[in-house]
Amino acid sequence: MIDLSSDTVTRPTEAMRRVMARAEVGDEQKGEDPTVNMLQDVVAELLGKEAALYLPTGTMCNNIAIKAHTQPADAILVDRQAHILRSESAGLAALSNVLVDQIDGDRGRFTAEQVARAITKGSLYAAPTRLLCVEQTHNFGGGTIWPLAQLRAVCEVARARGIATHMDGARLLNAVVATGMQARDYAACCDSVWIDFSKGLGAPGGAVLAGSAAFIQQARRYKHVFGGAQRQAGIIAAAGLYALSHHVERLCGDHENAKILADGLGSIPGVQVELPVETNMVFFDVRGAGLSHEAFLANLQSHRVRVGSVGDRLRAVTHLDVSQHDIQEALAVIKKVCRKQDS
Amino acid sequence: MIDLSSDTVTRPTEAMRRVMARAEVGDEQKGEDPTVNMLQDVVAELLGKEAALYLPTGTMCNNIAIKAHTQPADAILVDRQAHILRSESAGLAALSNVLVDQIDGDRGRFTAEQVARAITKGSLYAAPTRLLCVEQTHNFGGGTIWPLAQLRAVCEVARARGIATHMDGARLLNAVVATGMQARDYAACCDSVWIDFSKGLGAPGGAVLAGSAAFIQQARRYKHVFGGAQRQAGIIAAAGLYALSHHVERLCGDHENAKILADGLGSIPGVQVELPVETNMVFFDVRGAGLSHEAFLANLQSHRVRVGSVGDRLRAVTHLDVSQHDIQEALAVIKKVCRKQDS
Amino acid sequence: MIDLSSDTVTRPTEAMRRVMARAEVGDEQKGEDPTVNMLQDVVAELLGKEAALYLPTGTMCNNIAIKAHTQPADAILVDRQAHILRSESAGLAALSNVLVDQIDGDRGRFTAEQVARAITKGSLYAAPTRLLCVEQTHNFGGGTIWPLAQLRAVCEVARARGIATHMDGARLLNAVVATGMQARDYAACCDSVWIDFSKGLGAPGGAVLAGSAAFIQQARRYKHVFGGAQRQAGIIAAAGLYALSHHVERLCGDHENAKILADGLGSIPGVQVELPVETNMVFFDVRGAGLSHEAFLANLQSHRVRVGSVGDRLRAVTHLDVSQHDIQEALAVIKKVCRKQDS
Amino acid sequence: MIDLSSDTVTRPTEAMRRVMARAEVGDEQKGEDPTVNMLQDVVAELLGKEAALYLPTGTMCNNIAIKAHTQPADAILVDRQAHILRSESAGLAALSNVLVDQIDGDRGRFTAEQVARAITKGSLYAAPTRLLCVEQTHNFGGGTIWPLAQLRAVCEVARARGIATHMDGARLLNAVVATGMQARDYAACCDSVWIDFSKGLGAPGGAVLAGSAAFIQQARRYKHVFGGAQRQAGIIAAAGLYALSHHVERLCGDHENAKILADGLGSIPGVQVELPVETNMVFFDVRGAGLSHEAFLANLQSHRVRVGSVGDRLRAVTHLDVSQHDIQEALAVIKKVCRKQDS
Repeated sequence: MIDLSSDTVTRPTEAMRRVMARAEVGDEQKGEDPTVNMLQDVVAELLGKEAALYLPTGTMCNNIAIKAHTQPADAILVDRQAHILRSESAGLAALSNVLVDQIDGDRGRFTAEQVARAITKGSLYAAPTRLLCVEQTHNFGGGTIWPLAQLRAVCEVARARGIATHMDGARLLNAVVATGMQARDYAACCDSVWIDFSKGLGAPGGAVLAGSAAFIQQARRYKHVFGGAQRQAGIIAAAGLYALSHHVERLCGDHENAKILADGLGSIPGVQVELPVETNMVFFDVRGAGLSHEAFLANLQSHRVRVGSVGDRLRAVTHLDVSQHDIQEALAVIKKVCRKQDS
Repeated sequence: MIDLSSDTVTRPTEAMRRVMARAEVGDEQKGEDPTVNMLQDVVAELLGKEAALYLPTGTMCNNIAIKAHTQPADAILVDRQAHILRSESAGLAALSNVLVDQIDGDRGRFTAEQVARAITKGSLYAAPTRLLCVEQTHNFGGGTIWPLAQLRAVCEVARARGIATHMDGARLLNAVVATGMQARDYAACCDSVWIDFSKGLGAPGGAVLAGSAAFIQQARRYKHVFGGAQRQAGIIAAAGLYALSHHVERLCGDHENAKILADGLGSIPGVQVELPVETNMVFFDVRGAGLSHEAFLANLQSHRVRVGSVGDRLRAVTHLDVSQHDIQEALAVIKKVCRKQDS
Repeated sequence: MIDLSSDTVTRPTEAMRRVMARAEVGDEQKGEDPTVNMLQDVVAELLGKEAALYLPTGTMCNNIAIKAHTQPADAILVDRQAHILRSESAGLAALSNVLVDQIDGDRGRFTAEQVARAITKGSLYAAPTRLLCVEQTHNFGGGTIWPLAQLRAVCEVARARGIATHMDGARLLNAVVATGMQARDYAACCDSVWIDFSKGLGAPGGAVLAGSAAFIQQARRYKHVFGGAQRQAGIIAAAGLYALSHHVERLCGDHENAKILADGLGSIPGVQVELPVETNMVFFDVRGAGLSHEAFLANLQSHRVRVGSVGDRLRAVTHLDVSQHDIQEALAVIKKVCRKQDS
Repeated sequence: MIDLSSDTVTRPTEAMRRVMARAEVGDEQKGEDPTVNMLQDVVAELLGKEAALYLPTGTMCNNIAIKAHTQPADAILVDRQAHILRSESAGLAALSNVLVDQIDGDRGRFTAEQVARAITKGSLYAAPTRLLCVEQTHNFGGGTIWPLAQLRAVCEVARARGIATHMDGARLLNAVVATGMQARDYAACCDSVWIDFSKGLGAPGGAVLAGSAAFIQQARRYKHVFGGAQRQAGIIAAAGLYALSHHVERLCGDHENAKILADGLGSIPGVQVELPVETNMVFFDVRGAGLSHEAFLANLQSHRVRVGSVGDRLRAVTHLDVSQHDIQEALAVIKKVCRKQDS
């Protein structure tokens, strides 16, 4: 199976498995797992933050960050297509009890002026804006990258009004590799930020949330409240450390593969591709080729190729377990499937 | 003071006060206040619903209805300018823990197609849409009226997918008087609906939420949870009954006054009026006359005229305590204030 | 009907109704109702607090105070029979999301040592105690009075550890009248306190919450969140002002009546009375006379006498609408009902 | 270091590490991790339930079960010393918004009569009891075991009134091994139950919640809401499978060690031990030997022995990483530390 449904499907490599098997561990929730502690330190350093906290999932990073930055009945600002709004089961409403206000971004990225207009000072009637969330790269925007200057400008508007800023950096390192910027430069724009190890980095799980020492202290309490405090988590954290050393630069290959895929898809009659492709995601539409997306997906599966769907868009994501050869093979299958319809 | 800031500023008339002073009362939260019970019956009948529940405020009607229709982590659909989203202190997030998704309405009214597109079926990732809210008349849309056919179409889409529908009918009777339709015809579109007595109807307080018997039973429990169960509330409910008998038809006068005001404002150079004016609200902008809204409001106040502001818009609302003569006087003041700037 | 089920059943007197009918009013939620403002000032003065806030119900006073003093996932300490725990529909869990820890009081009153033992400092595992609640008089404790010294000692323990203190003073004035102490002396023990006008004071509704200016500012926001911000509430607030002037001293009579009732009940074979009776409540048990409580209540009702039940206890409450003659009549009925069983 | 602070400190054995390193994995949150799926199946079978769900922690099992069984403003019944009440950071209040009512158990175990008395049917005033929680073994009760007959009786009372039942079975297998009963016999008493792999079983993490298919479907949604849906979790789940095959019977040894430890402690002058010791926990008090617990713990640490504290009690827990020889050595250290004080 060539699985392009998400970069979350990657399986640990043999080398990564060996590292996990040898990991030194301890009781993580007592702060006694040396591998978890090391991963936290490494990520804090990478992102230029005072402290960091290991968590089982990226969704929990978002849930905890929002909880720590807000009070119930506060308002937060997010892009209309933000992952936390569209794909995290309303965790922010259920756990943080905040009101979401939406900004109409351009493929996930909005402007400082939009933020300035959307901020509510707060009154007896209007919920005060307390948090601005950004997503780097922006998944449903198309794997798009926030340019550093735009990100700075947007976050500066929030900061100037005392509003906290949070970055969902599930794929921040994809942006880093694609632009050559430092992770800490993007991270410096926001009060809190996290990266995920189970996506392009290829670890089986784990995410690390970073911010000020005071923020992380609060986050640690919510980690317990939300049931995220584990025990010998160093087994998985070891994969995260390994991934940071061995799997970051190779994200470039995923981006190349995504461009090859996009080019190939664009040449198929009736297929529309969302351009430009900036990182490892290709959103496209095959209905112009006379296929419903359901039929297309089923057809692909029968040829042992899988892509995903987001609303009425198709999404192919490149990753560690997909080679350039796999991309060519997937393209051949897609061409065949689309052509059949055409005839 | 000619107070056009809102129709909530009305004071009870002498006749209304006399009725309140004579009201028969009992312990409302035990179901033993005869005047409250009568008002509930009258409103249930008026709105064509099985049962109704007296509550201290309209905001509590919205809070309770949303709570009864949803579970935490559900999603609800509202217009981007809905009062419950913009002006009720995030009560729905704090009390019902639901995710709000926004529809870009046309002055508060959206289409069946927009609803169909916005509905989420729900998955492990996406919060399921469980409730659609409409507002009749739509306050921040401009006191606009949902045409019955459009309202029906919109609610039908929701119903067909098992999604509950709720109407914020704070000013439903303004729509009724303006169109000549029956309140129950509008109300029939939605599973729950409430009307407010403290706005154009001129009572000092109170609102009544109506729906199915099962819904009202649940609502009654939340009335206790939220602290809305009062005692001898019949004193205020009596004003509501009086208002239903004496203050509904006269809403026409408010609408006429609003049109006169809008015409007058439209003739002042530099003043932009949002048209058409459909009920008792006039939204306008005087910045074209060289005045900031802050300066304009302060200036008006010094001439003993008050209008309100909603974001960067000005809002004048006509009501029981404002005569046609008051409108002319207010217009004269506004003209003077705008002219001064002009010179 | 001689209704001893609660002191909440009182109906406004003619004099009180006249005062309400003449009340000067304005838009309360804008701070423009002069009668509400005056009542807030009078109560703040009475309770020796910086500021006060008018609310529709006492339950909302409790809900808002707990919300303002705590964060979700905090712990609060209350007596095992506290009204907020047993009879307010879990509002504190639903709205404030706090964990309740229970102290086994002696008829609602506990000791400083009990508080010291029950306080949790808070850790990653244990929710920190953030609030101590007391109830004066204590309803389900038997209308019992907290001695000032004991109340001071208990609250001092909390304060010394940075824990907020809140008094449910629904019937604080009963304690005041019974002991001759000042309301402000009791109130000084706690950071926040409220009194209710719809109980022994005989007004149709309304309660006022008092505390520091900063606390009341926060409370005002939650008043909007919870749907408690009304409009021309001065109509009801006027009854509160009237009650403070005319109905406080007369609570003595209620207390005398309660003692007479308790004496009479105690003399009926098989009837157990909880003693001493300290204010206007008499808790008793007639099962020793061979009657289930259900049968007893039904029997009484058929003789137009009503008492209440709290769990498996019976409760008779004296108030403004019950004369000494009514008490004698009620006793005669109860004797007759109990005797019948006996034979 | 001989670490008796908890059985959560166990580190995976070499054999367990080898199994983890070879585990077949997939994307767990899509239901595609074969090892996770197998562990779920095995646990469902072991506990005699229709379905099961892998979760990162036991606390999340409790949080999700309570959420799925209740609505906000419901009441739940737990023992006064329940782990979910005392040691899970108020997660149930924060996430499920329920009111906790406490039963005074006997070392964590209460009677059917106590449950019957504590249940609230629910009214407009009283929150309805919707869930009864039990803990097997009972941690803060002293690692005590619920006798099957008592557990059945207690749960039967709840079921008969339509109240759900949930078992925190973090150490259920300790009870199983100690009594020779089947896990499914205990589990049959409750609607939901979970076991933990990171305690006596010695895996680095993971817990599995079991119940009806409908319950698990709901639980799966909350797993996403609470941020517990991981990716290639099979790495850790493999350790759980291994533990079920290799580490269950050996819990007997932990129990023997605990008895040896208790006997030894009991023979030290001034040391009080809570008896009987039923599984792998020994609660004791050394203050009679003239030592504060702080001093005792510090002293022990300096001799490289660690025990834990729960409130003002000391707790020693035996586990996989503690041999009988370690117990003897720990006893020798404790004797020395206590004797020093004595002299």
